[in-house]
Amino acid sequence: MTQFTIGIIGSKGRMGEALKIAIAEAAHGYAGGVDADDSPDALTALAESADILIDFSAPQALEANLDAAIAAATPMVIGTTGLEERHHWLIDSASESIAVLQTGNTSLGVTMLAHLVREAASRLGEDWDIEIAEMHHRHKVDAPSGTALLLGEAAAAGRGVDLTEVSDRGRDGITGARKQGDIGFVSLRGGSVAGEHQVIFAGEHERIELTHRAENRALFARGALRAAEWLMGKQPGRYTMPDVLGL
Amino acid sequence: MTQFTIGIIGSKGRMGEALKIAIAEAAHGYAGGVDADDSPDALTALAESADILIDFSAPQALEANLDAAIAAATPMVIGTTGLEERHHWLIDSASESIAVLQTGNTSLGVTMLAHLVREAASRLGEDWDIEIAEMHHRHKVDAPSGTALLLGEAAAAGRGVDLTEVSDRGRDGITGARKQGDIGFVSLRGGSVAGEHQVIFAGEHERIELTHRAENRALFARGALRAAEWLMGKQPGRYTMPDVLGL
Amino acid sequence: MTQFTIGIIGSKGRMGEALKIAIAEAAHGYAGGVDADDSPDALTALAESADILIDFSAPQALEANLDAAIAAATPMVIGTTGLEERHHWLIDSASESIAVLQTGNTSLGVTMLAHLVREAASRLGEDWDIEIAEMHHRHKVDAPSGTALLLGEAAAAGRGVDLTEVSDRGRDGITGARKQGDIGFVSLRGGSVAGEHQVIFAGEHERIELTHRAENRALFARGALRAAEWLMGKQPGRYTMPDVLGL
Amino acid sequence: MTQFTIGIIGSKGRMGEALKIAIAEAAHGYAGGVDADDSPDALTALAESADILIDFSAPQALEANLDAAIAAATPMVIGTTGLEERHHWLIDSASESIAVLQTGNTSLGVTMLAHLVREAASRLGEDWDIEIAEMHHRHKVDAPSGTALLLGEAAAAGRGVDLTEVSDRGRDGITGARKQGDIGFVSLRGGSVAGEHQVIFAGEHERIELTHRAENRALFARGALRAAEWLMGKQPGRYTMPDVLGL
Repeated sequence: MTQFTIGIIGSKGRMGEALKIAIAEAAHGYAGGVDADDSPDALTALAESADILIDFSAPQALEANLDAAIAAATPMVIGTTGLEERHHWLIDSASESIAVLQTGNTSLGVTMLAHLVREAASRLGEDWDIEIAEMHHRHKVDAPSGTALLLGEAAAAGRGVDLTEVSDRGRDGITGARKQGDIGFVSLRGGSVAGEHQVIFAGEHERIELTHRAENRALFARGALRAAEWLMGKQPGRYTMPDVLGL
Repeated sequence: MTQFTIGIIGSKGRMGEALKIAIAEAAHGYAGGVDADDSPDALTALAESADILIDFSAPQALEANLDAAIAAATPMVIGTTGLEERHHWLIDSASESIAVLQTGNTSLGVTMLAHLVREAASRLGEDWDIEIAEMHHRHKVDAPSGTALLLGEAAAAGRGVDLTEVSDRGRDGITGARKQGDIGFVSLRGGSVAGEHQVIFAGEHERIELTHRAENRALFARGALRAAEWLMGKQPGRYTMPDVLGL
Repeated sequence: MTQFTIGIIGSKGRMGEALKIAIAEAAHGYAGGVDADDSPDALTALAESADILIDFSAPQALEANLDAAIAAATPMVIGTTGLEERHHWLIDSASESIAVLQTGNTSLGVTMLAHLVREAASRLGEDWDIEIAEMHHRHKVDAPSGTALLLGEAAAAGRGVDLTEVSDRGRDGITGARKQGDIGFVSLRGGSVAGEHQVIFAGEHERIELTHRAENRALFARGALRAAEWLMGKQPGRYTMPDVLGL
Repeated sequence: MTQFTIGIIGSKGRMGEALKIAIAEAAHGYAGGVDADDSPDALTALAESADILIDFSAPQALEANLDAAIAAATPMVIGTTGLEERHHWLIDSASESIAVLQTGNTSLGVTMLAHLVREAASRLGEDWDIEIAEMHHRHKVDAPSGTALLLGEAAAAGRGVDLTEVSDRGRDGITGARKQGDIGFVSLRGGSVAGEHQVIFAGEHERIELTHRAENRALFARGALRAAEWLMGKQPGRYTMPDVLGL
């Protein structure tokens, strides 16, 4: 693979630090990093010197980041979370002049799993009950995880239904029999589990379980880097993680 | 193993039918069965002719069943569910003259698992978070399962705490971080799953998972039969499933 | 769904008996069965009276079975195992005049899983190591199972490699590091397990596990029936299980 | 918990580095470290200044390490692997004057699991088939893992049999039916898996699975530290990991 140089926006955050390690492991070049306390000039300089930018900063910094990338004609991977509708408009607009890949989850495994879940849900009938279980460390404050919901969306899309209408959460007490077509969610919490997700298709006398296990957070940095490798040399446009896997 | 003859009280119910198959497989003798519509004389005759009785009938029949067993000096395995305090008094009283084994769950595997859970909970500190997951078929109307609660009681007993004070059920939404010492429960429903239970001890960087998988309901009949084999020849007294495994 | 009548060839075998139960559960009609000791006339009559035939007999009976189906213009599902090349020629020939679906595994879940495995293997790079584990009851005499090999073929096809050249079996002792591109197989044996298969894609810091669990053998009868439902009304031709799922 | 100071012998190795992190996390004091290239005086000084020593160096250094600990009356945790019979004599001799805990595996979870496996094997009859599966990263060169064998020894001890006589490894091809009483081993390799072990008890219609999952190698350092905490203040004698858990 051709090596290239990468600039990190949000280089001192947890993902920024993990990216630097991943870049070194992959023998790419590190073009440098900028953070919230750096001057706009630093951003402009980085966009010009780097072959590609990876942004794990904050929604409010997105507009300036995109402007710098456009000015330097440098492609950009955006992994920043918490984006709102107007941020997506900015990305759409930028993608007319540069190649941009935006995603809320840079794991290749989760991207693959979501595809398999959608595929299975679209082929197996509603007599296969779908349940989604996830486990995360004891510090996580919300349930289900964003990734569990992403997998639920994939299952609902495969069936051509709206997740909000079939979602079954917090099952406890006298629940009555399971409603056909429902997609159930359960959340386990404990220890230091980095993140495990399982989608179960439970049919009559047989079951399919599709599982993803994350060992640690390094995989998200590696996935972002893989996205960057894929994006290099692409035509201007807006891309997503499934594109990286050719899905 | 010495073969003997078994009389079934509640012989036409689901467990009664499964017991007849298990008795035949084990090459024991079937002394006959009585049911709610049979005369009291039939019960008396069965108690006299059988080497041992297995009762899977109903709580309201228990007193007559015990009286017949006492009169014939025949040991008895009781798997009837829904017993109340006064039924336990009757059993205590009967156990002064005959050997009686009463249990709410005749699975050897679940009995063993509960013992292992208690053992692990008593040795591992509270920094190992305990979570209990169970999955059952789509027709089950309550959650968590009785067996999940039994395993939760075993974990709580191992830690010397009261399950009702640490039980965490129906986790959903913004829950905040996990509370140390809690025992979490989640319930999955789908397909025709006979019953699966998993107790997770999630520590820092490592996890122990203790799992039981039931393939079908035949195992409950086999467990009751194993209890009967163990009870044969025992002194009068009241026994439980853990005794069968020497726990 | 429209109900129809089904004739079973090999009606007294284990699969034949399971099929009768599945037909009754699905409220289809049972047109009758023929077996090795029945006269050719019985076969002719069954082919004429049934809307569709399901054959779980023996390879040596296949030619006569196909002839009867062709004469009566009745579609046919073939689940007989042990077919040789010449049997496949007979099926090809028959499929010019009637609709025939032939398969070595009638499980919908396994058919689905094989598709997902092929899909994942074709998208994920060779840096995702593939391992296949299966567990069956203690009486099984060969390893790995036919289904494990079928899943291995699906993985190899996804990667565009020949399974025989990358298969790694019987790992034990000083093996050296794992060879990139290998597909490993391990076989567990014990108890009364009906059949479990797991394909693992182990990447750097993350893992995908695709699992199928069979609760009992009834699912194979149900799958054959589902194949028959799908085949009713189809044009003459040769079909396979993936067609049933639209794969 | 009372804090104390720890000296590390083999401080620059992988376990030594992990120990320093674990010591800092636990807010104990780091008394310093010595390695193969340090002078004997450095070892003497460390033994005198530290409250306890943890040794993850090499077998050939053991005698000098024990002499220094005895001279300074400092307790010692030994996690060095590859010890031979004469090293165990040295430890026995040292344990007459100081407290020594020696172990080949410092994981609390594995120690607990081995205890549960032995317990289950001793209670469940030989009609519960025992299988042991393990998975490790692609670089591991031997199979089964040392921990899998340790768990096999625990199962064999529970049954009162000799593991070498019942061990079934490398199952492949026409194996015939499973032999009652055998303990099977299978090894999976792939990705970056830190280490997973599962002991399966497969009975008639039910199964118990006892599993340990290691997320990374930090747990071994934490386990060694926990052993040191437990050993502080103990009478001279030779101790093992099960003692730490009160087993």
